[in-house]
This record gives sequence, C-alpha cells and structure tokens, in this order.
Amino acid sequence: MLKKMASPDMTLDRLNALPRSGFVAALADVFEHAPWVAEAALGSRPFTTVAAMHDAMMAAVHTATPDAQLGFIRNHPELGSKVARAELTKDSQAEQGSLGLDRLSADEFARFEKLNAAYGAKFGFPFIICVRRHTRDSILRQFERRLANGIAAERGTALDEIALITRLRLNAKVDGPGKPQTDGRLSTHVLDIMRGRPAQGVRVALYEVGVSARGLLADSTTNAQGRTDNPLIADEPLRIGTYELQFNIGHYFGDMEKFLGIVSVRFALAEPEGHYHVPLIVTPWSYTTYRGS
Amino acid sequence: MLKKMASPDMTLDRLNALPRSGFVAALADVFEHAPWVAEAALGSRPFTTVAAMHDAMMAAVHTATPDAQLGFIRNHPELGSKVARAELTKDSQAEQGSLGLDRLSADEFARFEKLNAAYGAKFGFPFIICVRRHTRDSILRQFERRLANGIAAERGTALDEIALITRLRLNAKVDGPGKPQTDGRLSTHVLDIMRGRPAQGVRVALYEVGVSARGLLADSTTNAQGRTDNPLIADEPLRIGTYELQFNIGHYFGDMEKFLGIVSVRFALAEPEGHYHVPLIVTPWSYTTYRGS
Amino acid sequence: MLKKMASPDMTLDRLNALPRSGFVAALADVFEHAPWVAEAALGSRPFTTVAAMHDAMMAAVHTATPDAQLGFIRNHPELGSKVARAELTKDSQAEQGSLGLDRLSADEFARFEKLNAAYGAKFGFPFIICVRRHTRDSILRQFERRLANGIAAERGTALDEIALITRLRLNAKVDGPGKPQTDGRLSTHVLDIMRGRPAQGVRVALYEVGVSARGLLADSTTNAQGRTDNPLIADEPLRIGTYELQFNIGHYFGDMEKFLGIVSVRFALAEPEGHYHVPLIVTPWSYTTYRGS
Amino acid sequence: MLKKMASPDMTLDRLNALPRSGFVAALADVFEHAPWVAEAALGSRPFTTVAAMHDAMMAAVHTATPDAQLGFIRNHPELGSKVARAELTKDSQAEQGSLGLDRLSADEFARFEKLNAAYGAKFGFPFIICVRRHTRDSILRQFERRLANGIAAERGTALDEIALITRLRLNAKVDGPGKPQTDGRLSTHVLDIMRGRPAQGVRVALYEVGVSARGLLADSTTNAQGRTDNPLIADEPLRIGTYELQFNIGHYFGDMEKFLGIVSVRFALAEPEGHYHVPLIVTPWSYTTYRGS
Repeated sequence: MLKKMASPDMTLDRLNALPRSGFVAALADVFEHAPWVAEAALGSRPFTTVAAMHDAMMAAVHTATPDAQLGFIRNHPELGSKVARAELTKDSQAEQGSLGLDRLSADEFARFEKLNAAYGAKFGFPFIICVRRHTRDSILRQFERRLANGIAAERGTALDEIALITRLRLNAKVDGPGKPQTDGRLSTHVLDIMRGRPAQGVRVALYEVGVSARGLLADSTTNAQGRTDNPLIADEPLRIGTYELQFNIGHYFGDMEKFLGIVSVRFALAEPEGHYHVPLIVTPWSYTTYRGS
Repeated sequence: MLKKMASPDMTLDRLNALPRSGFVAALADVFEHAPWVAEAALGSRPFTTVAAMHDAMMAAVHTATPDAQLGFIRNHPELGSKVARAELTKDSQAEQGSLGLDRLSADEFARFEKLNAAYGAKFGFPFIICVRRHTRDSILRQFERRLANGIAAERGTALDEIALITRLRLNAKVDGPGKPQTDGRLSTHVLDIMRGRPAQGVRVALYEVGVSARGLLADSTTNAQGRTDNPLIADEPLRIGTYELQFNIGHYFGDMEKFLGIVSVRFALAEPEGHYHVPLIVTPWSYTTYRGS
Repeated sequence: MLKKMASPDMTLDRLNALPRSGFVAALADVFEHAPWVAEAALGSRPFTTVAAMHDAMMAAVHTATPDAQLGFIRNHPELGSKVARAELTKDSQAEQGSLGLDRLSADEFARFEKLNAAYGAKFGFPFIICVRRHTRDSILRQFERRLANGIAAERGTALDEIALITRLRLNAKVDGPGKPQTDGRLSTHVLDIMRGRPAQGVRVALYEVGVSARGLLADSTTNAQGRTDNPLIADEPLRIGTYELQFNIGHYFGDMEKFLGIVSVRFALAEPEGHYHVPLIVTPWSYTTYRGS
Repeated sequence: MLKKMASPDMTLDRLNALPRSGFVAALADVFEHAPWVAEAALGSRPFTTVAAMHDAMMAAVHTATPDAQLGFIRNHPELGSKVARAELTKDSQAEQGSLGLDRLSADEFARFEKLNAAYGAKFGFPFIICVRRHTRDSILRQFERRLANGIAAERGTALDEIALITRLRLNAKVDGPGKPQTDGRLSTHVLDIMRGRPAQGVRVALYEVGVSARGLLADSTTNAQGRTDNPLIADEPLRIGTYELQFNIGHYFGDMEKFLGIVSVRFALAEPEGHYHVPLIVTPWSYTTYRGS
C-alpha cells in the first residue's frame, strides 16, 4: 500500500557542474513558474548539501522585491479549482491529485470554491498550502483559520508553505548528501500479554477518518515479531489528520463474541515529519495503547 | 436514558392468599395464552420466594404432555411479523416493541419473514427467544444458528427461552423475597493518570453497533469521581450484542488535535445478567481499558 | 491488622450541657497541659458541630498573648526523648508510642537527641509535629527541613501542627455531628485480565519501607471481588511515608518461575486524609498499576 | 557493565584444514579432559558450520560405550568444591569463577558440600550443569530437584548439560558460519505517556535478587530514545534467576514524594537464549510493564 516517490533523476554533483542555463532549466519549475529563483541561487554554487541549495533558493525568494514576491505567490494555482487545471505545473498536478483534489464531490467542490473566493477577495492571492502534508479535512480547517489572519502574517505563511512544498520537490528531484528530512513514519506492534509474546497473525487496517476522509489506507497482518512487514506509512510526510487503526483481536484470540472483537484506536497525526509508533498490548479482555517511539 | 420497568403491582404474599381463580387470573398471561400453567402451579402454594413460584410454573410446563407442550409453544407469536400483531399478549407487544421489531425496515422485515418461513417449515412452531436479552443482530444470528438444530434440541431451547421470558415477566409483575436475578449492569470510570485523579467532565456516549443496531443508547458526563451519575445500563438485562463507548478525551484535555480525540472502546456484551465495568485510564497520549468489576 | 481507635466516651450534647468546671475537666488535656484553652472556649457554647468546638479552642490559642502562646508551645514534650516520658499526657504517650518513638534503637535515639538539641537551641521550644500523620522517616525529614525555618514561621508551623494533633484528640474523645475529616484510606483491587475477572486468592502484603520503617503493616488475601475484605489502612490518618504493596502473582497464576512472581508496587503516601486506591491489572506477563479512586 | 567474551582465536576453515593431531590438540579440552571426543569427530571433516562440528562431537559422546560415557562424566569437577580446584580445565575455572563459585561464603560452601555429597552418593558421578546459564540460586534449586531423579534420567540430563557447556566453549573458541545461538538479551525502554515521548534521563539499575544473588549487575541512564545505550545484558546467556529493574521515576519527574519514586519491576528470566524486553510506560501516577519483544 506504500506509494513510493519515483527516484530522483539528478545528482547534486551534476547540478553543481552544469552550465548556468542547464542548472536553471533543471530546476525551473521547483518554484512554481519561477525560473528566476534558480537563476538567483546560481551564484552560491557549489552546494555541499541539498538543504543548502534549498536554503539559497528560499533566500532568493525572501530577498526579492515585494512586488516580485507577490507576483510569484499569485502564480500559484487555486486548490480544487477546475479552471486552473491546465495551468498547473506537473508537480502541482501530482500534489493535488495525491489527495483527490482533482476529483472532488459537488459539495466539496462548492466548499473549496467558496473558500477560494473569500480568500482571494481578502488577500488578493491564492491560498497556498503544502498539500502533501495534509488531508482534505486539515486543509479545509487550515483554510478557515488562515482566512482570519492579517495580510502580512498570511504572506509570511504562504512563503513558509512554499518552503515546505519546494523542499519536497527538490528531494524528489535531486539525489545527494544532506537532503532535508521530509518523511514521517507510522508503525504498530501487537503484544499478546495473555501468552507473553508478540501477536502473530493479527489483521491490522489503517483508515483516515473524518468528513472528507480517504477511508482505508493500508491493511496488513502482523508477523512473528507482532509487527507489520512494512510501516503503515513511510517515505512520505504523514498527512495531518485523524486516523483509525483497527486490530482484529477477536479473530486472533479465536472468539468474536466474548468481549473484544475489533479494537479500534483513533488518533490525530499532527507532525508530518514525525515517527508515530502506536502499539497495542492486548488480552481478550483488555488493551493498552500509546504513542510510542 | 435509563428505561425503568414499572413497579410490580402485586406481592407474593397476596398471590399466596388469593382464591384459586384470582391467582390464575393474576398470572394468566405470564405464560403466553396459557392460564393452565398458573392453575397447575396452584397446588404448590404458599411460595416462599418468587423464584420458587417460577420454578413451579416451569415444572408444570415440563411435565405437561408432549402435545400440550407443543400447542403451548405454537401459541407464541412470530418475531417481527405484521399479521400476528393483533394476537400478541401485552407483554409480547412490549417485548418486541422494546427492540423496534414492530417497526422494521423493509429489508429487515424481509429477512425476518424469510427466517420465520424457513423455521416454521422445519420445526412446525415459531422461533422463540427472550427478546429482552438480545439486540436485533444477536436475534438474527441466533435465528440462523438455531435453524441448524435438530427438532428435539430446538424444542428444549424453546422451553429454555420461555423460562427466561417468564422469569422477567414475573419479576416485573410480582414483588416479594427471592426474585430471580435478571438484571445486568454496564458502568464506566475515567481515571486521569496524567494528574493522578478521577477525570471529571468527560463526555461519554454509549452506542449499540452492528448492521441493525439501535445507535446511541446513553450519553452522560463524568462526575467528580470520574463516574457517570447512573450506570449506563441497569435494572434490565444487558442485550447480547456489540457496543461502543466513546469518550471525548480531546475535549477533556483541552486539545483535539495532538493525539487522542474521541477514544472509542468497542466490546461485546455476552452475559445479559452480568456486571460489566469498562474503565478508561487515560493521558493525552495513551489509554488502557479492560473488563473490570 | 487495623488499629481501631477506642470509641469516644463523650457526646457533644453532653459537653454543651455540662457545668463550666465539668466542661473544662473533660477537655483539659486535649491541648497539652493547657486547661485554659477549654476555659476560653466555654463562652461560645453551645457548639453545633465538633469542628466548631475545635475552631473555638484554636481561636483561643491564636488570640492568647505571645507569652502565653510560647509557654503553651514550650509545655509540649520532645519527640523520642527519654527524660520527658514521665511528664507526657496520656495522649502524647499513645501518639509517640504508636510510632515506636518510645523504643528507638540507639542510633535513632542519638539522631533524635541531636535534632532536639539543635532545634531547642535555635527556637527555644520543642519540635512539635502531629505524629499520627507521619512515619519516623517523614518526621526526621520534616525535622531537618524545619530547622532551616525562621523563628516566626516555625511558631506558626508549631500551632498548625497543634491544630492537627488536637483535631484528632477531640475526634477520639467526643461523638457528635460535624466531626473534622481526619481519616485516610488505602485500598487495592486485583483484576486478572488474562481471564477477564477479579483475581481471587492473591496474597497481598503492605510494608512501610525506608531507613526507619516499621516493616509489614498488613497482609490479606483477595476475595471474589478481587479486593481485600477490609481496606489495608482505614479509620486513621495515612502516615506520610513510602510504602510497598507486594502481590504474590506467581502463586496466583500457579507458576513462580516464568516471568512474574512477587509484583511489588512502591509509592509515597503524601495526603494523610486522602483516599488512595492502588489497583493491579495483571496477567502472568504484564501489569498496570495507578493511583485510582 | 557488559562482560564480553574474548574473541575466538580459531576459524572453522583452519580447523577443517589442520592435520589430525592439530585438530585434536586445538579442541582437546572443549570436552572436559576428553581429547578422544575431538578424535572421534575427525572423520566427519570438513564441517560446513560450527553447529555441525558440535553435533559430530556430541554424537561421539552419545555413541561411546556406557563405561566410556560414565568415565567421561566422572572426569567433570564438582561445583563449588575447593579440593577439585587444581584439576579444573581453564574453561571450567572461568565458568565457575564467573558466578563466584570459587569464593562462596561459609554457609554457601557448606550447602554445596552437602549437595555434592548426597548427589555423589546417589549417582556415583558429579553434578554437572551449564553454569553460564544459571545463577547460584537456580543452580541450588536444580541441584535439589535433580537429586530426586532416577539414575538413567540423570545421566541423560548430565549429557544434555554437557552439550550446553561445550556449545558455549566452541562458540568462544571458533569463528565461522553457523554458530549455535547461545546468547540472550535483556533490554528496556521507558515511555513518558504524560508528555507522549521517550523518557530521557531515567536512571535504571538491574539487580539479581535472591538468597545468593549477585546484587547490582548494571546501571545506566536512558537516552533520547528512552533506551539504554547498550542492552542491560547481551552477548552471553541470560542466567536463569530472579531480577529486579529499578527505574528512578521520582527523579525523572522531579518530585520524589508525590506518589511514584523508585519503580521496581521484578521478574524471572527462564530462557537463557531468549530476548526479554521489559518496557516501562509511565506517568507520575501510574505505570505499565510487560514482557515485550
């Protein structure tokens, strides 16, 4: 169930060695429709880490004139908007598509339209958020909260989100030392404390829950160590949102009707780059769960 | 949210003292359309306990001729059947109504019709079950299981269920010493182990869950002892089925988005006359639950 | 193992009705060698609660002249001192004896002598503490801490401790409404979550632990409810100190050598008038314990 | 605190290639005073795994004549005996010394003498046990139990223990593929569920407990992952016995007197080659522990 990113097609060494035009061409769309960002960062070559290259590009954004910054921000697409589809960079399309923002229900579409309109009217630029770190529910919640911001704070927030977006884009595109930490991890572990050993053969399912939730995200069965062979989520940011782990404990203990059947553990993921380990310590009559590490 | 039974209108002393016809009239419908059961038990008066009176009445059923037994069993109504409604005793109406069997959806009605038909064709008498000890889901599960029984075993099961039904009816009708234990109890308790004290002000909701479940059964807020002022279910049998307790822990700890929000504990109740105590021992990052006592 | 106080020999009603001299004689020694306290409180009769009578007596102390207060404080015995033994009130003797302060080891005696000397030299009056709320270890810890106080603060602390001492003496002597709450309670409960029921037959022992600890205080075996028939401590203040509950879990599960044998739970009691409930939720391979209620 | 074995000084390849006399000389004392065992195993060279070489040597023991077997068994030293000291192989000396059997108290020495005498009188050969898998308490317990065996069973047990002893000796002497698994592991992990993160800076001490116990075995402080930098025991068998982990929780939470101070978890280790993970999930008011993995 893990969605691996494609491997990067470029190394930091090669980017350091490319002629100026090649460097700019290679990174042109990392910052949405803004090849000038790569160009402004050129002078700082060679970069010793991918993070340093990203820092240099963000510095170019932060030191641009207010008008240039505003123009850059305005060049970003609206979220969930149909009209903007043709003009999205390929990265933007993939990011929005990863969350199904390109195939919203009529109700959800209407909700985004309304928020986009209100936001545009207040701030004069589109709402920008690092979609890969969010669920639809958390995007909508952020949208509503940020509508209450002042304009200066909100421009700052837009740039912060752009930093998060472009960090992920660079990581996907470029291989090399010192890549920024952008991945989270969600794992589980089932301990059978009736018998004093890992619980093997427990069916585990992970759901996103909430109004606009994506439903089932992963299912697996615990191995001899009481763990799933792979983490439930890895190699990507954990999307901020509410989740539910369901453990089929009734089946494991061979009796669905005595007390525990499906044990469900609902929790929020709030740190997209964090490691959440959510163990279950269980008998047919009891369980303990916690955020572990 | 507790559904209290009406108080009994009759004492055991008075039943012991009544003339024969009065005794029979008072208890005529305890056994469905079978005043002869009360009549047969008359000779064992005076009864020292309500349980002894019930035993005497069941002994009358068990020692009746096979034909009389079969006739008696056949006089019971079908479950969820519309045609039989007019012929139900008032107790039968209340019992079936308590579970909404008088207002099934079209699908549920069709499912009961099909099971009633198959059961009647195989056994020649209606399916009898002590409705007050069951949810719709557990009735349907029992219905399917018992269809696989042999005819002799199933007649025995029908009489066992009649014993359970009439025990409850007698308890509701008659006051006096030695009443059979027919009530269960479900309670909870929330301990805040971040602060080392009972968790006061936690919203608790109890749901029945499952295909034909009744949904929300009770909601309450914990008091200074971390308990609800009244048990979540009491003074009646616990209906066999699957339940979910939801604790609003996010609200209690003042933050819905960090890790725990709604904690839901799903469990089966399998002993209608049992005491289930389901505590929650909780911090914002962990919880333990178990069948306590 | 519970040490019950003798029943009170006097009622509040009777104290309200006694002639002045009788009232003073009855309460003469509640405040150590200070019948004038009872005399000063006389005018506030009749008292509607025992607590109100105690308040009136403490008010008499607080409104006495500084010299009278100091004389009163000086009339208290030293702790653990052999020379003072003959001059103690019967209550003082019982209080010190309850903790074995009348039969200290040579080392302990020397430690008390040294502290008494240092305290007397600094403050000019003896160290006063409500012995019934303390263990020897907590008395020695308090002794050392309070030696660092200023003289005014320490006089205040001495009067606060006298209030605690005399509250207990009045409660033991007088029956009537509105007695101050002076008792604590320590109880336990063992749940077998391997089998989903209370653990019956678990041997439980309570120890006081620490340098000068009294050792075994209570032992018992859990009943069908998984509880001891009586609380481990009740009907008296919980002495501030460190305790250890030992549960013979290996014996209960019938195997001493697999993983758990004696489970020991060590904890501090810090609120003498509190209710501490310390449950154990256990399988042969795991346990959970917490301060419950 | 970990006692690492010295690295092996010989490879399996080299043993396969040595001339016959060199092979026998290299392994002469692996089986106590019995170079004939190595000689009998010679014919099965080359060995592809260390385990296969050990199997071949044990096969030589099992197929020897009863008299040869008995002579071999008799050539083993008594445990804790002073007279035998000079005649021990170096391995035997190290094994007994690792448990302090060469420096017993007078009482312990007397207990061993009595058991050695009773055992010798009954069986005609010395009591053999793989000392590295035991504590003094478990050796004494085994000694008493095995005294009740019949002579044939006890000869079988002696050979089983010799297999365990020589497996460890071979592992220590020979490097190569397929070494038998002879090491156990004991580790811990402290989770702070008040704050939802690993507990860093908790002082942890491991004790062996019991009549003849060795006392403190390891102490450490948890790191940022809530673990000790090294396992508490590793790279050797876990000695069968009773242990206590002490966690200084009062210090970690900054308050020794509220409820929890030193949390002690006592448990038996019964599988010398097993992995025992004993986590503590803790707040200032509660904890959970279990045999994890």
